[in-house]
Amino acid sequence: MLLEHIQTPTDLKKLSEDQLPQLAEEIRQFLINSLSSTGGHLASNLGVVELTIALHYLFDSPKDKFLWDVGHQAYVHKLLTGRGDQFSTLRQYKGLCGFPKMSESEHDVWETGHSSTSISGAMGMAAARDILGEKNKVVAIIGDGALTGGMALEALNHIGQEQKDMMVILNDNEMSISPNVGALHNYLGRLRTHRHYNKMKAEVEQVLKKIPTIGEPFAKTLERVKDSIKFLLVSGVLFETLGFTYLGPVDGHHMHEMMECLRQAGNTKGPVLVHVITKKGQGYKPAEEDSVNFHGVGTYKIESGAFQKKKANAPAYPAVFGETMVKLAETDEKIVAITPAMITGSKLDKFQKTYPDRCFDVGIAEQHAATFAAGLATQGLKPVLAIYSTFLQRGYDQFIHDVCRQHLNVTFAVDRAGFVGEDGETHQGVYDISFMRSQPGMVIMMPKDENELQHMLYTATQYNKGPIAVRYSKSEGEGVPMDEEFQLIPIGKSEVLREGSHVALLAFGNMVPLAVEAAEQLAKEGIQAKVVNARFAKPLDEELLLAINKREMPIVTIEEGTKIGGFGSAVLEFFAERNKEQSVSILGVPDYYVEHGSINEQRAEIGLTTEGIVQAAKKCCVPDIQKI
Amino acid sequence: MLLEHIQTPTDLKKLSEDQLPQLAEEIRQFLINSLSSTGGHLASNLGVVELTIALHYLFDSPKDKFLWDVGHQAYVHKLLTGRGDQFSTLRQYKGLCGFPKMSESEHDVWETGHSSTSISGAMGMAAARDILGEKNKVVAIIGDGALTGGMALEALNHIGQEQKDMMVILNDNEMSISPNVGALHNYLGRLRTHRHYNKMKAEVEQVLKKIPTIGEPFAKTLERVKDSIKFLLVSGVLFETLGFTYLGPVDGHHMHEMMECLRQAGNTKGPVLVHVITKKGQGYKPAEEDSVNFHGVGTYKIESGAFQKKKANAPAYPAVFGETMVKLAETDEKIVAITPAMITGSKLDKFQKTYPDRCFDVGIAEQHAATFAAGLATQGLKPVLAIYSTFLQRGYDQFIHDVCRQHLNVTFAVDRAGFVGEDGETHQGVYDISFMRSQPGMVIMMPKDENELQHMLYTATQYNKGPIAVRYSKSEGEGVPMDEEFQLIPIGKSEVLREGSHVALLAFGNMVPLAVEAAEQLAKEGIQAKVVNARFAKPLDEELLLAINKREMPIVTIEEGTKIGGFGSAVLEFFAERNKEQSVSILGVPDYYVEHGSINEQRAEIGLTTEGIVQAAKKCCVPDIQKI
Repeated sequence: MLLEHIQTPTDLKKLSEDQLPQLAEEIRQFLINSLSSTGGHLASNLGVVELTIALHYLFDSPKDKFLWDVGHQAYVHKLLTGRGDQFSTLRQYKGLCGFPKMSESEHDVWETGHSSTSISGAMGMAAARDILGEKNKVVAIIGDGALTGGMALEALNHIGQEQKDMMVILNDNEMSISPNVGALHNYLGRLRTHRHYNKMKAEVEQVLKKIPTIGEPFAKTLERVKDSIKFLLVSGVLFETLGFTYLGPVDGHHMHEMMECLRQAGNTKGPVLVHVITKKGQGYKPAEEDSVNFHGVGTYKIESGAFQKKKANAPAYPAVFGETMVKLAETDEKIVAITPAMITGSKLDKFQKTYPDRCFDVGIAEQHAATFAAGLATQGLKPVLAIYSTFLQRGYDQFIHDVCRQHLNVTFAVDRAGFVGEDGETHQGVYDISFMRSQPGMVIMMPKDENELQHMLYTATQYNKGPIAVRYSKSEGEGVPMDEEFQLIPIGKSEVLREGSHVALLAFGNMVPLAVEAAEQLAKEGIQAKVVNARFAKPLDEELLLAINKREMPIVTIEEGTKIGGFGSAVLEFFAERNKEQSVSILGVPDYYVEHGSINEQRAEIGLTTEGIVQAAKKCCVPDIQKI
Repeated sequence: MLLEHIQTPTDLKKLSEDQLPQLAEEIRQFLINSLSSTGGHLASNLGVVELTIALHYLFDSPKDKFLWDVGHQAYVHKLLTGRGDQFSTLRQYKGLCGFPKMSESEHDVWETGHSSTSISGAMGMAAARDILGEKNKVVAIIGDGALTGGMALEALNHIGQEQKDMMVILNDNEMSISPNVGALHNYLGRLRTHRHYNKMKAEVEQVLKKIPTIGEPFAKTLERVKDSIKFLLVSGVLFETLGFTYLGPVDGHHMHEMMECLRQAGNTKGPVLVHVITKKGQGYKPAEEDSVNFHGVGTYKIESGAFQKKKANAPAYPAVFGETMVKLAETDEKIVAITPAMITGSKLDKFQKTYPDRCFDVGIAEQHAATFAAGLATQGLKPVLAIYSTFLQRGYDQFIHDVCRQHLNVTFAVDRAGFVGEDGETHQGVYDISFMRSQPGMVIMMPKDENELQHMLYTATQYNKGPIAVRYSKSEGEGVPMDEEFQLIPIGKSEVLREGSHVALLAFGNMVPLAVEAAEQLAKEGIQAKVVNARFAKPLDEELLLAINKREMPIVTIEEGTKIGGFGSAVLEFFAERNKEQSVSILGVPDYYVEHGSINEQRAEIGLTTEGIVQAAKKCCVPDIQKI
């Protein structure tokens, strides 16, 4: 076994190059075994085993900087930098993070989670290196999907201009960028980095200067040849147009070829793009054959690859969203769906199959997704943008400038709202209430259960006075029966679930069941809590709030979102605006980044639990208790 | 005079094509005259006179949709759609908006202000058209600068895939994309749209299939020719790679050539990109020669082009920022500056000249700008990102995910914070306090005057515990003397400017002078107001707040920012968290979009004035007054 002797990249360098394929095989087996019991991002990591080994073998981390775009493919990197013994805690509470994490290792120089950031970060590191007069290499490793993110393209554009020495490794595992890969292409890629290349290029340019005088026949020839070459070289031309030296494509599972290519890249001046072809799930049949479902997995049986699914008590909110969309679209031809590369995650598969012409997967392009939705809405369609809460951050200006400010009827289906569990701090959907609420005319809903979700989606698509958001958790629903008929929910009206006079628990969305439980516990102690399913964080139910104020009941607000500027703050602002005294206690996510773990562990850490609500209620209705 | 007879595009179509150059000349004279007394975006509009005439002449607005990217070049469009008589009110309060505005005309089908949104919007309209079975053309008109914005690139990528019929007009007025424009290039562009083109292409591809067997010598030739052609055709290849038919470049001031080209474009199936070369300021010497300063102008003398500058009472905040940056960088080699295409607007000209290696203009690329800054900070540099408040919205996820969550020492110099005056609702910098405040560890400052600005910038660059923002207005400062030595401002400490016991006025940044005046007026009525220069919206000055609470004084908070989730809400949250009763009245921007006008008119509209503060103070300290 080679792997057990490797705790640092220095250990790795002691191996001969011939031993590396064996190491790759050991790493694959380790990952397949270890992840079978913890879950994690198996397929993408199996795809970068050779690439990661080659990078650590050839370069000198942490002096040389590796930036893993998105970051869920950094497991091999973690293995080679002394974290093998922590893999049994992967993505678990207080355990090994599923993404690069500076606090874990000096080799993690850049944290990720969202896509398309690595090139900008790498450019910053390269620029800093030159300013500080240091010598090191900077390498961004980015997938072909992430490359379509606008910020990656912005970065390529800037890098082409600045011409800093740096390397971008395009980890092409979808073949979506370069369908025409062949021997000639490979040959040209290698040719181009030969030392004689620049000289040859200058010669050709000399010849070229004479062309414009030659006239039409030559122009025609030129045109023909040009189109031909484009056909072969499209990706190379694209990157070279942007000022990169383009190397590849190279087989990312052929250790020797890749080492050669990366060595060349390391000796190239200026920005270089290395096009590496990899296969998701490489070396593990079940993952090779179903890389989509093996992207992020739970536990599975090693031999068959069969997932060990926990028995669900109820459908998860995203699944209910997906079903409802199909149902809504049946009777309303104006409904269209948009997703930024999350058809499966957002459960739009069935919608896409049923209504292919009304479903738009725009790729990793959240900004475009939001403004594209705005464009659809200007023509009277009813676009529903399914987008994860944290990824909506990527389209924030478009949300403000193009949708809200133009008062367009776009429905935001804000998925993964609240805690997300194992993906941790980069993916927590805890800011959306706060950042959406500042926009005039915005309506923000969250359902107490999956049945209410379908009614809210119906309400949203019927609403025609501007943008509206339905946020929902990734979790299982409550297991309630689903109504056959859709119901309209009056905008800004809450629902009283329980009457009480000592304290009012105003719960938003998925916090409602906890509030109900808390009220039951409080009742046992003689405290009668009114429980309100708030339904709306904007607009608020003014009538209800004034009635509670009139009865001098303290309020506890409960939301799975930041306490800063969220639903609770809205309640505070409401009473301040009216100059009314009102006790309000806000339960929500406090002012720090909550790390990975299960959702229940995350809630427990910050007291967003039944017990937490009970405590808060007791604390603020002390005077009432004394009256009892 | 032709212009006076044109109230609608229908009127325009009655002219013969030969009359159009005369109309163009009349429009130029109208704009030069009219803007000399109102100010406005002169240069960019002079650049699109022929283009706009051609579009309205050939196509059929509002059935056909024109989307003006950024939108400050839509004056000619406004003129041709019946708004000539309103030009004397351009950009004034309740007057003609400087950008497209749906409420002004049915011909304004898409509102803009920020850049790079038009292609996404157009794609949405084209997709909606096809779903609804309608027939019309959709045309996005976008500048070469705006094209570098990531969302524009995301849109191009999506359009190339969907192949909807639509037109993108690249208004190339900087020559930055295509330096090598020539006769051959024009010829090829025209050639490519001929009907025989597709047939020819197929033939060439047939030939091509035989190539891989030919071997190395041919490959070398291919390589040479390919580089040569790239040299000539770079822009065309780029767009064709993305699935567009590429037309042009065409001279945007040659009416006949452009009409021909646009006609061809109108008959092309699928997405077509028309590359139009225009000159900013065309036809007006002073603007042609200094298009940067004639981009957005105040009033000027027509003959000389001399600006009629109002005498400044004090340097504006951005100018003080620029000067301070140069001074700070002198003694601190780690300071670097970043701007997304706003060197001049952000007053970084001098810094760029003095420290060219430490100044990065990344183009219109706010996302990349923020994450690039993060990358620089990881290596111990002290990046200062100069960014307008509304444009920071474009980099919000990068702000959260890459800077704040990684606790990196990036200084955000948030320019154009608060009201911006004539640019109106798309540019109002009123959400930044609210959306920045939700991030753990964030520090948010705003100076009461220009002298404090320099100290805050110094403090920010000395601060090393994470991200920090200094927001400041575009307005003139207060005319206070500037200290010679920089001073450190203690983080989270406010400054008491006046003692008083009846009411506490907590003013943030540029609201401080108003609060001081208000206190003076209140004193005349026997109300003693304590005036606090809050300095920080986060973290708050806890000691001060508790002391005020202890003395049972009502608080009035004052900020030029949204009342939703802003500084005032922070104060509310502070007392709610501690379960303390406290009267807080929040003065700020209410929950609607405030339109164009002067900053003073905008403040007056919402009561963010000395008088407004006096009224609010009186209202909340009624009990105290009764005691007097």
